[in-house]
Amino acid sequence: MTVTILRLSHRLVRDKRMSTHLALTARAFGADEFFYSGEHDSSVEESVNKVCEDWGGDFHIKYLDNALKFIRSWKRNGKVIHLTMYGLELEERINELLSQKDENMLLVVGGSKVPGSIYELADYNVAIGHQPHSEVAALAVFLDNLTKGKGRKKKFENAHIEIIPTERGKQTKNLGEVITDA
Amino acid sequence: MTVTILRLSHRLVRDKRMSTHLALTARAFGADEFFYSGEHDSSVEESVNKVCEDWGGDFHIKYLDNALKFIRSWKRNGKVIHLTMYGLELEERINELLSQKDENMLLVVGGSKVPGSIYELADYNVAIGHQPHSEVAALAVFLDNLTKGKGRKKKFENAHIEIIPTERGKQTKNLGEVITDA
Repeated sequence: MTVTILRLSHRLVRDKRMSTHLALTARAFGADEFFYSGEHDSSVEESVNKVCEDWGGDFHIKYLDNALKFIRSWKRNGKVIHLTMYGLELEERINELLSQKDENMLLVVGGSKVPGSIYELADYNVAIGHQPHSEVAALAVFLDNLTKGKGRKKKFENAHIEIIPTERGKQTKNLGEVITDA
Repeated sequence: MTVTILRLSHRLVRDKRMSTHLALTARAFGADEFFYSGEHDSSVEESVNKVCEDWGGDFHIKYLDNALKFIRSWKRNGKVIHLTMYGLELEERINELLSQKDENMLLVVGGSKVPGSIYELADYNVAIGHQPHSEVAALAVFLDNLTKGKGRKKKFENAHIEIIPTERGKQTKNLGEVITDA
């Protein structure tokens, strides 16, 4: 089972950090790949690729010309879930989603304006609460609930850097060497 | 019990959307108030206050001149929790935190550079996974776990707008009137 993220309608400059955080959140909570549509932005791709290189794993980010066409053709692979504050709350959907967890999943996350057809194409429109907040928060909480907290414990192969959890301060392991930095 | 958020080292322009999303995430997942330090930014305050006015509740945002002084004096009120990828993972702390849930909580969320003294001042340094991702994701997942999903179901008094959850499309209730918009 793979989890694919699609971020709609990225805008250069304005969305740079949001889209980067969204991709890193996807990676850190166990998703496999990240697509985005809207304006092509090498700076987002570079930031994400740099993290993947340093911290390991085979997560990747890719630009899409045509998001709707991509969703239509992807639908053959599994379930399409659109995260939107207007949908039914996650709590009402979680058991149904968990029962299908062997299926591939495409999570669609809105940008500045979501076309009405996305609501129709999606198998589920799921809300993470019904208050305005953040697509980053929505994605993180969705993946954390879907994986029951296991997504964020994923191990990444070929990492150059790794954290050694500690009660105070910062410790990282770098190519076998332990670095302590208060 | 109140949940207070402190966002460190906000930078004008560069952090505008991240800090706004952080504050809205705090509100949407049940926190009571939001402080930020660094550079004063009326545009973040205006965005957050506009959401509070439209969507209700008594959440508020406030600028702090001196974050360290604030934390030191706040410590008398309850527990200080610093969210950092270097700390012990939430899973190892969650039972201890849940057993103290009648205490007030100050959640400190890092900015561009976190001074070493924050790690010392905090009662707990808690990681939401040990991979780089987003302070917005960290805060959302922390609050969602702490409230066991109930934070995001909080009802807000005096709202001018409310969502009517629906399987497809968008429905909102505005001053008693139902608006449907595909």
